Amino acid sequence: MSAVGFTGGTLDRADRLRHDPDALAAAMRDPAARVLDLSPDGVPMVTDGRLGWSAMPAGEVALLGLDGGRPRFAALAWAGEGVPFRSPTLMAALASLREGEAATYAAARSLIQWHGRHGFCGNCGHATAPFRAGWGRTCPQCRAEHFPRVDPVVIMLAEHEDRVLLGRQRSWPAGRYSALAGFLEPGESIEEAVAREVAEETGVRVADVRYVASQPWPFPHAQLMIACVARAEGDAITLDEHELEDAIWVPRQAVAEALANEGGAFVPPPPYAIARTLLERWAAA
Amino acid sequence: MSAVGFTGGTLDRADRLRHDPDALAAAMRDPAARVLDLSPDGVPMVTDGRLGWSAMPAGEVALLGLDGGRPRFAALAWAGEGVPFRSPTLMAALASLREGEAATYAAARSLIQWHGRHGFCGNCGHATAPFRAGWGRTCPQCRAEHFPRVDPVVIMLAEHEDRVLLGRQRSWPAGRYSALAGFLEPGESIEEAVAREVAEETGVRVADVRYVASQPWPFPHAQLMIACVARAEGDAITLDEHELEDAIWVPRQAVAEALANEGGAFVPPPPYAIARTLLERWAAA
Repeated sequence: MSAVGFTGGTLDRADRLRHDPDALAAAMRDPAARVLDLSPDGVPMVTDGRLGWSAMPAGEVALLGLDGGRPRFAALAWAGEGVPFRSPTLMAALASLREGEAATYAAARSLIQWHGRHGFCGNCGHATAPFRAGWGRTCPQCRAEHFPRVDPVVIMLAEHEDRVLLGRQRSWPAGRYSALAGFLEPGESIEEAVAREVAEETGVRVADVRYVASQPWPFPHAQLMIACVARAEGDAITLDEHELEDAIWVPRQAVAEALANEGGAFVPPPPYAIARTLLERWAAA
Repeated sequence: MSAVGFTGGTLDRADRLRHDPDALAAAMRDPAARVLDLSPDGVPMVTDGRLGWSAMPAGEVALLGLDGGRPRFAALAWAGEGVPFRSPTLMAALASLREGEAATYAAARSLIQWHGRHGFCGNCGHATAPFRAGWGRTCPQCRAEHFPRVDPVVIMLAEHEDRVLLGRQRSWPAGRYSALAGFLEPGESIEEAVAREVAEETGVRVADVRYVASQPWPFPHAQLMIACVARAEGDAITLDEHELEDAIWVPRQAVAEALANEGGAFVPPPPYAIARTLLERWAAA
């Protein structure tokens, strides 16, 4: 069974350095300090399963953390959208990384994207500037402080008589089905967001929501994927065709076969996606 | 054992209306349409345990949902900071609400606060305008779409030899101790954020993080509180004095006594706080 994607990072985030300008300046001058190598469209440079690192650049940087005491940074100059997760170049780079390395990439990419989209103050419209070693931005006009955003997303399997409910979006690769998912909204618990999303997308009512696992997801911006299983109270599907192209109930054996690449009912979600972890754990339960 | 605070809302959020301008306009003209009554500083008006509702106002509104088909809105004109959770007026209002009513208040307050702090585009600085029935804002200049923010927060009990680790902040009421907590950062899973926060604040290393429950928390802006228990690998405390005034290990019996208002080791967190739910469940386990 695969580990949860984008987890297992080994950098010490060194929160104390973010609050200590002198210590941060010393870390930036440290001869061992390095900045993460990314292509112009946000793909990590990988050698022998490890992320590539370069000498410190001239522009703005964010402190990713310490690797055995050696400071590691991300350059904030890159502010494009970056390649999507499904880019073959990015998929190949991620597939070649050792465990834990992708977590560092996810943190860096999330932080860079957030700075790129938040150069101005939501409160007053003035240009903002990074502070706290790149883990925030302040507004010189209204003094508002802004911190990197992480959007919680619920992703879930409804189960009914040893089958799970999978959906597909029109834009996905042929044959791909995966767990339903959606953004958690203000004023909701995880359990309530799971029930609302499943009902909205398929008309299926669920109860007994159980948490399974979580992962950070940096595409196209920082999300926290919260994976759950829930008991469906019935199996009649009323599809929301704006959200999904199709939704199907898949028996446990067919899920196991699809994960084992033995063809069958559907093409499962790719490595790194927590939907795959969720299906693996459900199929093995 | 109390229910999880701010959960159990009964409004149908009616996502379909957010995407259908004609249906939304009809809902706003519906004679049964009402707007949530809030004081100028954000306290709900409560009668017989229920939230108060008024005739539709002239200004901007957000659709909270449908109550048995009757449209319910929040006015976006109120954009102050609002009273804090610990305000006696607010505490009394919340204490008088029937189950589920506080969830509607939490959603409304979160949404209103978000609009109040996001009148300008983070991407280009131009003034933005609400869309999707108040569940987003768009920028007429750069076309960026912005959606209400919810910050995931981990809140947790580390346990060691039948005791749990509680902390106190300098600003809290005398004697109050509660679960440790902190914002989840980009590039972290829930389990990783729990371990990092406990280590940063107390030096205690934890493993075997177990999810317990979650709640929405609207103070001072929308958060998702994710409550967990974790196994501590040791009990030596190294306090981060910037974050905490004190941290202590409390035996199960003393937790039960404090919750039962029998005095003792500490003043527990108040009703509505998921830290209280977490302590209740741990004490009863």
